Amino acid sequence: MKTDILIIGGGPAGVTCAVTARKNYPKKRVVLIRKQKKAVIPCAIPYIFCRLNSIDENLLPDKILEDNQIKVLIGEAVDISVKDKKVKLKSGKRIEYEKLILATGSEPILIPIKGIEKQGVFLVKKDYEYLKKLRKAVLFAKNIVIIGGGFIGVEFAEEISNFKDKKISIIEKAEHCLSFNFDDEFIKIVEKKLKEKGVKIYLKKSVEEIGGAKAVEYVKLDDKEKIPADLVILSIGARPNTKLAEKAGIRIEEKGTILVDEYLRTNIKDIFAVGDCAQTKHFLTGENVSVMLASVACSEARIAVSNLYKIKALRENKGTLGAFSTCVAGLGLGVAGLTEKMAEIGKYNYIIGTAEVPDHHPGSLPETKSISVKLIFLKGGEKYLLGGEIMGPEKIGEMVNIIALAVQQGLSAFDFQNFQISTHPLLTSSPIAYPLIAAAQDAIKKMDA
Amino acid sequence: MKTDILIIGGGPAGVTCAVTARKNYPKKRVVLIRKQKKAVIPCAIPYIFCRLNSIDENLLPDKILEDNQIKVLIGEAVDISVKDKKVKLKSGKRIEYEKLILATGSEPILIPIKGIEKQGVFLVKKDYEYLKKLRKAVLFAKNIVIIGGGFIGVEFAEEISNFKDKKISIIEKAEHCLSFNFDDEFIKIVEKKLKEKGVKIYLKKSVEEIGGAKAVEYVKLDDKEKIPADLVILSIGARPNTKLAEKAGIRIEEKGTILVDEYLRTNIKDIFAVGDCAQTKHFLTGENVSVMLASVACSEARIAVSNLYKIKALRENKGTLGAFSTCVAGLGLGVAGLTEKMAEIGKYNYIIGTAEVPDHHPGSLPETKSISVKLIFLKGGEKYLLGGEIMGPEKIGEMVNIIALAVQQGLSAFDFQNFQISTHPLLTSSPIAYPLIAAAQDAIKKMDA
Repeated sequence: MKTDILIIGGGPAGVTCAVTARKNYPKKRVVLIRKQKKAVIPCAIPYIFCRLNSIDENLLPDKILEDNQIKVLIGEAVDISVKDKKVKLKSGKRIEYEKLILATGSEPILIPIKGIEKQGVFLVKKDYEYLKKLRKAVLFAKNIVIIGGGFIGVEFAEEISNFKDKKISIIEKAEHCLSFNFDDEFIKIVEKKLKEKGVKIYLKKSVEEIGGAKAVEYVKLDDKEKIPADLVILSIGARPNTKLAEKAGIRIEEKGTILVDEYLRTNIKDIFAVGDCAQTKHFLTGENVSVMLASVACSEARIAVSNLYKIKALRENKGTLGAFSTCVAGLGLGVAGLTEKMAEIGKYNYIIGTAEVPDHHPGSLPETKSISVKLIFLKGGEKYLLGGEIMGPEKIGEMVNIIALAVQQGLSAFDFQNFQISTHPLLTSSPIAYPLIAAAQDAIKKMDA
Repeated sequence: MKTDILIIGGGPAGVTCAVTARKNYPKKRVVLIRKQKKAVIPCAIPYIFCRLNSIDENLLPDKILEDNQIKVLIGEAVDISVKDKKVKLKSGKRIEYEKLILATGSEPILIPIKGIEKQGVFLVKKDYEYLKKLRKAVLFAKNIVIIGGGFIGVEFAEEISNFKDKKISIIEKAEHCLSFNFDDEFIKIVEKKLKEKGVKIYLKKSVEEIGGAKAVEYVKLDDKEKIPADLVILSIGARPNTKLAEKAGIRIEEKGTILVDEYLRTNIKDIFAVGDCAQTKHFLTGENVSVMLASVACSEARIAVSNLYKIKALRENKGTLGAFSTCVAGLGLGVAGLTEKMAEIGKYNYIIGTAEVPDHHPGSLPETKSISVKLIFLKGGEKYLLGGEIMGPEKIGEMVNIIALAVQQGLSAFDFQNFQISTHPLLTSSPIAYPLIAAAQDAIKKMDA
């Protein structure tokens, strides 16, 4: 079989590659290979227990592929012959490509905890059949221990806490949950929300043993405390799937991802890599970072595909901003660019501006909630925005994208002060105290002081 | 009395001037003069009937002025002596200023319709006592006719339609309501929503007479149809308050607003003007436009104040983008920059990209709504974003601000394609089909076709 553009991987990165290829190159043949018959939406896996009624409600719709005339092959790519530009499937089938994109994703990290092989211990795999089992296990479990308090751990805990009959614990090694992503004043509110929903949080603790006869009965911490458990979920991170690439002689960088340049090209001609399996550099620091997010993967996919046939400088990957958001018990949280913690570690000369404002105006309107924002600007010179964090109702999921765009565009505190916005009583904060502008003005006040 | 910065006007523009002055010049004395004891929030006037329980719930909080050590004088400025830099109040009091900012706002236009003097005819005045009377009249009225289907007319109609016992009609001269602000495909949905709430809309009609003995009894249209009415609200626009400026010899431009330069300076040294009373040019076309919005007024206020003591090129007013939003029966609508209609009139060589996407991912999540977006890019060359319209749940109020920032930053369709965003199942659309990127990709596809 012959194709023009061949994509390995059917997750968000792979699908975005396919759709972008169709928009940019209407006449090219595009083939996508994926292992699973049904592809799950990775970001919404935490919500398969309560908000969604089945794994089938959490599938990447194949319609988007059909609508874009993408040929989908179900199968496992086991070999890339880079010389004659062919990919071999487990079935023996060979596909010849003009351009190849690896979007092979990542898989959950497994660490050698004693007892990890016991019945009732689950990982968070992006696998339809596996998740069906996990869903059933969660619905029947009474005492659930989640190891790892990152985004997945926190979101799982919050979702499952909607069932009033289950006891949920999070074990986190660091001082706080989400501590790599948000500053402490934001994290503390997340932890408070979780506690209000009955989730028990063990901080600065690690797991010594998962105990029980055949099935899990308890989790023993390093301080010897035993937490009763009939279900354990391990959510301590993910590692890139690079076996296929390695076998083909594609270079892997020190952090274990596929080495790519600013156009997402690997070291082998006509082979690109995007998403969790590919190297990610930070937009501001230029350093290699381990950011595995569907949004980043999709952004890389768009850039890679734009550059498949000719390099256009405008479309290079300037590095990853690190824009995250989550939602805990109705409270949205978002971050883009650097947190204060990261700015401190990076020894930036920075200044902080904050604001807390009602999300409607006047605040006496029904269903008004509060928005808190923290912006970090370079001090002196250009006063560029380095990053920001925001907390509040659902709309903050889009406000963090304003922050993301502002960091990408190199806006200064003064640019922010002059940012022309639209406001409406029922939709936004007041034009007088619009939170992003108010935070920039707070920073300006401190600069002049 | 002597001050450093004197502001005339206590609406959003005046208050923003005061707050910005405090942030930028912590040591300056700032005085604000306003006529009314209680200043109402103009944008939320449509919501004083049902969503708010009284006019007192719709006041600009004086706390923000107190917190920023702004001295407030209640009184009417009747004279500016530009030579000795003094403002005289009606009470006789004189205030000497270093810098003066006119934020005198606008007042509703009154047209000579026969019978307009009758009892039961109201304007939409930003006046506490007047609005109290209007609120009472609306609560008692049965048949309400709103003349003018712009933002205020539409929002009044929607708000009052929450009372099931009132018959509401809108009379609009143009082909559609809001026709200066949105393209027809958006407007039609607004009109549909209003009709579903029982509002009767008369398009391409004007009013010949407001009839009745002493009080209003009916409104007679140009086609002789008589609509029963016991209350008429005139919302056909506003005109700038410039009497004080004119008297002082400050130059007025042809459209009737105070002439200002890109730093919001009038022709008289040390006197600035901002908001509805000041000239507004369009960001893209450079033309004089009549945009009277609190968000624009506040943006101008920030720029003017930044430039009070020395001109900083970075902080010049690049013209008004025209970013609007509204909300009708739970449906949010926003626009920034040019609509297709405006692009056609301006003879731009443009291309349209559209997308319609669920606001959560997967779309099977509870409370998922649809977002529709339309982006307009320059065709050929740089493919800059000229503007966009968006429709959907509350969060579109912030998504239109992303569009606004993108127009201000001169983003191209390709920049949009590579825009790094944050996504979350419960907060945003999918990273694969994020609406703004999907619309840009749709435009790209058409460019290459």
